[in-house]
Amino acid sequence: MTEARILQRVADSFNRQGLMRHLGAELVEAKDGRCVIEVRAHPGTTQQHGFFHAGVSSAIADTAAGYAAFSLMPDDASVLTIEFKISLIAPADGDLLRATAQVLRPGRTVMSVSARVEAVRDGRSVHCAELLGSMFVVRGRPDVQG
Amino acid sequence: MTEARILQRVADSFNRQGLMRHLGAELVEAKDGRCVIEVRAHPGTTQQHGFFHAGVSSAIADTAAGYAAFSLMPDDASVLTIEFKISLIAPADGDLLRATAQVLRPGRTVMSVSARVEAVRDGRSVHCAELLGSMFVVRGRPDVQG
Amino acid sequence: MTEARILQRVADSFNRQGLMRHLGAELVEAKDGRCVIEVRAHPGTTQQHGFFHAGVSSAIADTAAGYAAFSLMPDDASVLTIEFKISLIAPADGDLLRATAQVLRPGRTVMSVSARVEAVRDGRSVHCAELLGSMFVVRGRPDVQG
Amino acid sequence: MTEARILQRVADSFNRQGLMRHLGAELVEAKDGRCVIEVRAHPGTTQQHGFFHAGVSSAIADTAAGYAAFSLMPDDASVLTIEFKISLIAPADGDLLRATAQVLRPGRTVMSVSARVEAVRDGRSVHCAELLGSMFVVRGRPDVQG
Repeated sequence: MTEARILQRVADSFNRQGLMRHLGAELVEAKDGRCVIEVRAHPGTTQQHGFFHAGVSSAIADTAAGYAAFSLMPDDASVLTIEFKISLIAPADGDLLRATAQVLRPGRTVMSVSARVEAVRDGRSVHCAELLGSMFVVRGRPDVQG
Repeated sequence: MTEARILQRVADSFNRQGLMRHLGAELVEAKDGRCVIEVRAHPGTTQQHGFFHAGVSSAIADTAAGYAAFSLMPDDASVLTIEFKISLIAPADGDLLRATAQVLRPGRTVMSVSARVEAVRDGRSVHCAELLGSMFVVRGRPDVQG
Repeated sequence: MTEARILQRVADSFNRQGLMRHLGAELVEAKDGRCVIEVRAHPGTTQQHGFFHAGVSSAIADTAAGYAAFSLMPDDASVLTIEFKISLIAPADGDLLRATAQVLRPGRTVMSVSARVEAVRDGRSVHCAELLGSMFVVRGRPDVQG
Repeated sequence: MTEARILQRVADSFNRQGLMRHLGAELVEAKDGRCVIEVRAHPGTTQQHGFFHAGVSSAIADTAAGYAAFSLMPDDASVLTIEFKISLIAPADGDLLRATAQVLRPGRTVMSVSARVEAVRDGRSVHCAELLGSMFVVRGRPDVQG
């Protein structure tokens, strides 16, 4: 598949995720086992102290991890998260939250993926969370509009 | 603290979480190291196949885990998630998603918590995710309106 | 398969694990998605304070989790650990360490398993670690002597 | 502390770990939030197919992660593993297993650490496991011979 085709395929799936739309998340990049997703801070993204909620970090990091894996999958496959672990290493304090995921090893059936989450304010970014997860390659079930 | 006082304290904090309000999540119970949070399905809770997004399961399970821990903490403390791992063991297919968290061991500084996530449809519930996480007891910093 | 046959099959595999023998671990039970493994304390099981090393807790909990899953697999399958997370919730201080694993959901290709680790001294047991992991069902490759 | 002093301090603690000695593991490096531990393959390190057991990967990766954190701690502190997650991304097939740990963020009370495990054969190394964990800084309790 061409890069444009892969990005289109990921974008088609991403755009059907009601949660990503509800959070205002944007797909920035998806190719070669790598994916970037960003979300701007707004009143619906906070925890009790006003930072990004760990649920937002988890949601965009998991989604980026899933599409990083999906970018390497054949046409007839879709992706499912088996599990992930996320360490929240610093307060997610910023105007923007960015998750950058990278496939560690593209197995035929299971792909291990890591993702780095950064909080950005005034162009300065802080590494605030790190994800390590496992994605399942669902063969014979293309990820298309149902 | 009385049970009513603990619930009030958790509710005060929960109500300041913009993400929980944005998702339409409700605090059902919080006492004795246990907490229950629910969210009804709506167009903003889905992944690409129409089920609850793993980010929603993670968000309510993490929040329930945090408040299960918080329900055991002294007045002058607040709670921070250090990390969690979540296994998505079945599709989160239902009208309602419920996370029930339970402290495994109430350490002085770190509390280990598990949470069970169930998807409910027509009164039948399916165990769809399991969380295991670590909460930090932040002493000397009460969780109050900033 | 009969229970005796399943236990025999697990024992055959367990007995080929050099690490379990080297640690002096024993297979106590394996059936119906459940498995118990024990190890007695000796100078080769300790960390720097004399308790059981987290590596021992991890090794027997992961092995019990794998065989809990394996006990539900067809004849032509073997088991691989995809990943696990372990929370060390109390010092593993005792004469004996016991891991009890239970399959949470027996998927066709991936099985989610939890395991509880207890340290036992003078008949009193303390819950010292909790594992949550994912096991892969390797079909078409029986787990037999190579 | 000088680098030599830090290495000595880590080595003193490492040498009191019965499990590391029992497995034949060696401390290769420890400074600046980084630690390397290696173990050679022998009949006591295997799982049922003859590869390194996940318990060995976990044991050396957790130990390296702990000492990477410990290398940044003050004199009066010792280290405890809160939890870790390990993804086993390829068979640990080699003559030597090497864990390289790196502190992600040196918090005052909790340090997040990652570790990469490689299996080496004939000078070629394969990334076979990845750990993400949390270490607790136990203040006021130096890690010295009891």
